[in-house]
Amino acid sequence: MERLIQQMKFIMEIDKLKQVYRQSYISDGTRHENDTEHSWSLAMMCMLFSEYSPEKVDVLKAMKMVLIHDIVEIDAGDTYAYDSVGNATKRQREEKAADRIFNILPKDQALEMRELWEEFEAGETIEAKYAITMDKIQPILLNDITGGKAWREHEVTLDKIMNRNKNTGDGGEQLWQYAKELIMENVKKGNIIEE
Amino acid sequence: MERLIQQMKFIMEIDKLKQVYRQSYISDGTRHENDTEHSWSLAMMCMLFSEYSPEKVDVLKAMKMVLIHDIVEIDAGDTYAYDSVGNATKRQREEKAADRIFNILPKDQALEMRELWEEFEAGETIEAKYAITMDKIQPILLNDITGGKAWREHEVTLDKIMNRNKNTGDGGEQLWQYAKELIMENVKKGNIIEE
Repeated sequence: MERLIQQMKFIMEIDKLKQVYRQSYISDGTRHENDTEHSWSLAMMCMLFSEYSPEKVDVLKAMKMVLIHDIVEIDAGDTYAYDSVGNATKRQREEKAADRIFNILPKDQALEMRELWEEFEAGETIEAKYAITMDKIQPILLNDITGGKAWREHEVTLDKIMNRNKNTGDGGEQLWQYAKELIMENVKKGNIIEE
Repeated sequence: MERLIQQMKFIMEIDKLKQVYRQSYISDGTRHENDTEHSWSLAMMCMLFSEYSPEKVDVLKAMKMVLIHDIVEIDAGDTYAYDSVGNATKRQREEKAADRIFNILPKDQALEMRELWEEFEAGETIEAKYAITMDKIQPILLNDITGGKAWREHEVTLDKIMNRNKNTGDGGEQLWQYAKELIMENVKKGNIIEE
């Protein structure tokens, strides 16, 4: 019973992720997207895009990774991709958050969550690469469908986007090619600054 | 390429689910929960609660079910559990929605989504039972943590809740026992009407 109470406490704790908002807008452009909505979209992409992985991928493991990858942001907050100041302290803030939040769970499950998160962060296994490809491509889809709303607001440049996406093709080259075309179209439209 | 375009179109279509709101409030009580947030919570529960399933459960399949089970509500809207008028036409509205939305995908994936949804709706396999247990318990957790907010607003009675949860224990008896205790505490607090 103690075990179940810990698990239920964790489920209610992570509900707070519904109030952590990202810079991306949802597809109708009316408001920012939160971390749980983002994670749900990535899980749906993991379910449907495994045929594009360069190697056989454990879809369950990749789905777990995308579902939990932002949980640390309950404490650490969302750090915008192109916020260099925030990104300098991101890892430290997120580790502290992982220590607190995952440890609400019973020890074995806390360890499983921590390992999944670390594997995602390291980006070395095929599941992590695949999960990261989804994580990088999904905001590009949302940016494109909202007329580059978040890109324009932050005056994002093409070289910054390309630099951030150096490894995005590793989990699905065709997916990255598709996203790259969207990016180039948005350069033409003036939604992304070419310099 | 045609295949990838269909898949990407589907991903953007189902983004609309972020604007379908439920009667449940998120844990801080500040606003209603939407279908993608709800589905993310269920997927997290599927990941963590398999030890309570009465039989060995295919967690990946159950997770897919909970992630997609509300997609039909993009067209059909959310039907509140205790809305008898809405529930009379629910199946018909949702079938029509399934026909339209899943068929945006390539044929093989449209079929997979449709079969997962039908299996969830039928509630006969262990994966469906397990997924349904999560779907029924999660709003109870949210209702409890928000002081019975949605229950009070709809003047929900204990017999209606118990009637709706006749099979909730089938996918995890201990989980249902936990939820039932929360329900009884909320009867005592006057958040649920006992009649």
